[in-house]
Amino acid sequence: MHDKCPHDDGTMRPGEVAVALPERFDAGLYFIGRIRTPWASRADCPKNVRERDVRCAIEIDPHWSAGLKDVETCSHLLVLYWMHLARRDLILQAPRHYGTQRGVFALRSPVRPNPIAASVVRLFGITGNRLEVGTLDCVDGTPLLDLKPSFPTTDPVPEAVVGWHAASRPAR
Amino acid sequence: MHDKCPHDDGTMRPGEVAVALPERFDAGLYFIGRIRTPWASRADCPKNVRERDVRCAIEIDPHWSAGLKDVETCSHLLVLYWMHLARRDLILQAPRHYGTQRGVFALRSPVRPNPIAASVVRLFGITGNRLEVGTLDCVDGTPLLDLKPSFPTTDPVPEAVVGWHAASRPAR
Repeated sequence: MHDKCPHDDGTMRPGEVAVALPERFDAGLYFIGRIRTPWASRADCPKNVRERDVRCAIEIDPHWSAGLKDVETCSHLLVLYWMHLARRDLILQAPRHYGTQRGVFALRSPVRPNPIAASVVRLFGITGNRLEVGTLDCVDGTPLLDLKPSFPTTDPVPEAVVGWHAASRPAR
Repeated sequence: MHDKCPHDDGTMRPGEVAVALPERFDAGLYFIGRIRTPWASRADCPKNVRERDVRCAIEIDPHWSAGLKDVETCSHLLVLYWMHLARRDLILQAPRHYGTQRGVFALRSPVRPNPIAASVVRLFGITGNRLEVGTLDCVDGTPLLDLKPSFPTTDPVPEAVVGWHAASRPAR
């Protein structure tokens, strides 16, 4: 096991708490494509994509590709993807780089009840079913769930504060 | 049928195209709570929440509520929710307010292969399992999928352009 992914074999760090998962699902998802990145394992994935400048790609399954009409006019896309390698039951987590127990809903960890990742990414171009985009943080082959245009009037909240995260606290 | 929701009975507008849905799902979702809004039907829901100033609420199922630890330190949350009333097969759509056929992935329409909505919302406070938040655009009782802290360094892209959308084009 790589140090960065201790959860894969069922182990937990001190302070972590798991809950039982419900016996059945409430809704179903279709995988509509795959994300292509240089990262072969979770340990390779960057923690902060803003520090990287690596082109990635999104391949839409041909079944859905008619839905790409007009997407080329968008500079940035909101990408939803499925963190298929992540366990789903850790309600309290102690990420190694913080070392403190926090609730899953206060973290951007891929480990969560519904492991849907959301990233805004720059769109460089579209060729057929393949979108060339900026850096994404997931392993190569990660299932794609959705693409949406990123509107500057809806997604961005530049003044957002995450109080527990030291780096985001306003200077005093 | 209300004029705003012509898809519910299987009708389509001129220029709209549907695809067959896959026979099976690739992954399953848990509904982890409900969103409480004043909107009883889809026709009542606001198109642009930035123009509204109505407090809404998010109720987390007690099974998952331990995951709220430290969420109260966040000023804004990224909310993922399930547009349970939306059909999923319209790959090309002609929204009434635009009147032009566009691909589903160029639209923020709730009608999409995986009807997951994503909104950044202001957090005003948490009492027990209930979060008081800013305006959300969905009907009362909409299933909740996930909450994530909104980091100013990851979500916001103030310079994002959606070329087909006149209002987002830079002035010339």
